[in-house]
Amino acid sequence: MVKINNNLNNLKKNNTFKFLSKSIQEYKKQNPTKKILSLGIGDVSFPIIKPVLDEMIKAVNDLGNINTFKGYGAYFGYDFLKNKIIEEEYSKYNITNDELYISIGAKSDTTNILELFDSDSTVCLISPIYPVYEEAIKLSGMKIEYLNALEKDDFLIDIPNQRYDIIYLCSPNNPLGIAYKKEYLEKWIQYAITNNSIILFDNVYEPFIVENDVCHSIYEIKDAKKVAIEFRSFSKKASFTGVRCSYYVVPNDLILCTNVNELWKNCVINKFNGADYIAQRGAWATYKEESKKAIKNNIYQYLENAKYLKKELETLGYKVYGGVNSPYLWVKIKENIPSWSYFEKILKELNIIVTPGIIFGCDNYIRLSALAKKEDIIKIVERIKKYDKKK
Amino acid sequence: MVKINNNLNNLKKNNTFKFLSKSIQEYKKQNPTKKILSLGIGDVSFPIIKPVLDEMIKAVNDLGNINTFKGYGAYFGYDFLKNKIIEEEYSKYNITNDELYISIGAKSDTTNILELFDSDSTVCLISPIYPVYEEAIKLSGMKIEYLNALEKDDFLIDIPNQRYDIIYLCSPNNPLGIAYKKEYLEKWIQYAITNNSIILFDNVYEPFIVENDVCHSIYEIKDAKKVAIEFRSFSKKASFTGVRCSYYVVPNDLILCTNVNELWKNCVINKFNGADYIAQRGAWATYKEESKKAIKNNIYQYLENAKYLKKELETLGYKVYGGVNSPYLWVKIKENIPSWSYFEKILKELNIIVTPGIIFGCDNYIRLSALAKKEDIIKIVERIKKYDKKK
Repeated sequence: MVKINNNLNNLKKNNTFKFLSKSIQEYKKQNPTKKILSLGIGDVSFPIIKPVLDEMIKAVNDLGNINTFKGYGAYFGYDFLKNKIIEEEYSKYNITNDELYISIGAKSDTTNILELFDSDSTVCLISPIYPVYEEAIKLSGMKIEYLNALEKDDFLIDIPNQRYDIIYLCSPNNPLGIAYKKEYLEKWIQYAITNNSIILFDNVYEPFIVENDVCHSIYEIKDAKKVAIEFRSFSKKASFTGVRCSYYVVPNDLILCTNVNELWKNCVINKFNGADYIAQRGAWATYKEESKKAIKNNIYQYLENAKYLKKELETLGYKVYGGVNSPYLWVKIKENIPSWSYFEKILKELNIIVTPGIIFGCDNYIRLSALAKKEDIIKIVERIKKYDKKK
Repeated sequence: MVKINNNLNNLKKNNTFKFLSKSIQEYKKQNPTKKILSLGIGDVSFPIIKPVLDEMIKAVNDLGNINTFKGYGAYFGYDFLKNKIIEEEYSKYNITNDELYISIGAKSDTTNILELFDSDSTVCLISPIYPVYEEAIKLSGMKIEYLNALEKDDFLIDIPNQRYDIIYLCSPNNPLGIAYKKEYLEKWIQYAITNNSIILFDNVYEPFIVENDVCHSIYEIKDAKKVAIEFRSFSKKASFTGVRCSYYVVPNDLILCTNVNELWKNCVINKFNGADYIAQRGAWATYKEESKKAIKNNIYQYLENAKYLKKELETLGYKVYGGVNSPYLWVKIKENIPSWSYFEKILKELNIIVTPGIIFGCDNYIRLSALAKKEDIIKIVERIKKYDKKK
């Protein structure tokens, strides 16, 4: 009998985003007239900006003309995009074209990268945690060890004494909405160098960074190229959640072995045929001057949403974390009920969707996304105010 | 020290398509004035047809409007596309929406699917073989056993007596260009049922099938749903090699376990955020009546190329296989030299790119792709004729 990969049986069957979205769908079906507003899923609400759109239409038209048609692209991305990303984001850290990979989304990238490591590895996760890492590690057969970030420490854990092979760090953090300061990340890099560990640095919320002492790239830190792989994406910045384009850096200096970047290339070549040409052209156009301005403005508005939500909730006596360098707020539940029950209660009584903290392994909190439309956020605050008054 | 996945060291460093394309690039650089024509890589030469292009432009515009914007899509594909594929290709075999997955390319699909199985599995490959399967199996840590398809048997192996956990079958075959008849596949399905094995059926060249006794889907065969996963793609049919859209079927009836499709869904959810919306809309438009006509015409022209090449080469005394239900020809090398040397010789002396058989594990042959432009194929035949006369 063919045997199933037994690791599949270790994956969560419920409690995932899928289960969450099912619950929401069911509620919507049963209550078709109710106006449900969402602070739940981290999807964007601004459409794609015009210069990017125009470039994508040009790209589609290229594909319809025999003289400009593009078939199979480069495995690791087109040079027009790679060189642009290097120039704009990475040349200052001496990252080269050869170290950059264009791909189809950070979820795939941050999970597929595990194939680079021995399945006996031990991976450190800092809870609350984006559950996708967790499931991918289980699937790989690696061992997970958790460190719990606690409210009393402002959700910043001390650098551990114990050694782990691999550490996932996400900053600006999903779900906490906090961003690690440079000096804190420096300690992690030092830890990784001392322990010969690898840091998988999920930096997809980088476009939301506004504070000066927060790194825009892990490679701002000396020696980070020896121990860190960094992941970024066009999803939130360019509203590419439906288009799919991401990138990541596998430095040649990684301590893993002398030719890790070459080994990884061999792996990618055998499982991937490059990202969509249209998406890559669109991604390239995000670096035009007019695009940069429009994107900056969108990000500003998301952050204004976050600021407004945070202020209003704090006025109502809620404990709120994050929301400064990130579109996410991490809010403590005032009532003494589990986060899933709270999610259901808020959905039923206020018709508001939030994400229960238990999805990230932390039950006394909810995550709110300020990527929603401003008018929705204003209505949501009104509903919460009314609800809090009644009690 | 973090350990590298040792399976990465087992991957081929040379002899891959990458090495091939490097050799070609270098030759082109050294000989910038030479007119090099290609029958090498299996990329298409027709641009995307107009109705599909129009739909993709509409889709791009959707993304630029707040009322029609699409963010994260469904993990397994949009229903508008899934339902269309079911209706057009699969409802006749009682395959349901729930069993269909939309993805970003058959290369990723036919290799990622290995995560479904225990890493102790033994996988049967029929040589010559598309090397991507081979490398993915090595990467997974599974064991490969080869069966050699021989010219004396018209490259059809006997159904083995030995049991394998998993068997890759590709029909119409890459690189051979031959297609398995229904009665031959029936034997394989019977084998898989008797042995509790799984067949991974790579059917991406299905659009090229013209003969009546060749299955358009493995599910034409009774009980195939118990043992076979089928893969297809829009790449060759709709010139989507640069756009990336594919699909595959994981039947609920698979003998592996009672809920294999559910287990696989859990896996996909954690590593993938759905295929690009624009690509899916384009794929949907390939089923319009006018698209079907235009695609049929493109395929007809590719097959006419194949027929012409085959006839001319046979006239010159070459042994040629395939090219009837497939754009590929498998040609025996007349001279007594290895296929890599032959590739280099033909590139230098005739400025023609072919794919050396050794890439597929079979050294006395070359693979020719008839997906090239007609005018190029005519020129190529002229060059070969001249060359053969001189000798």
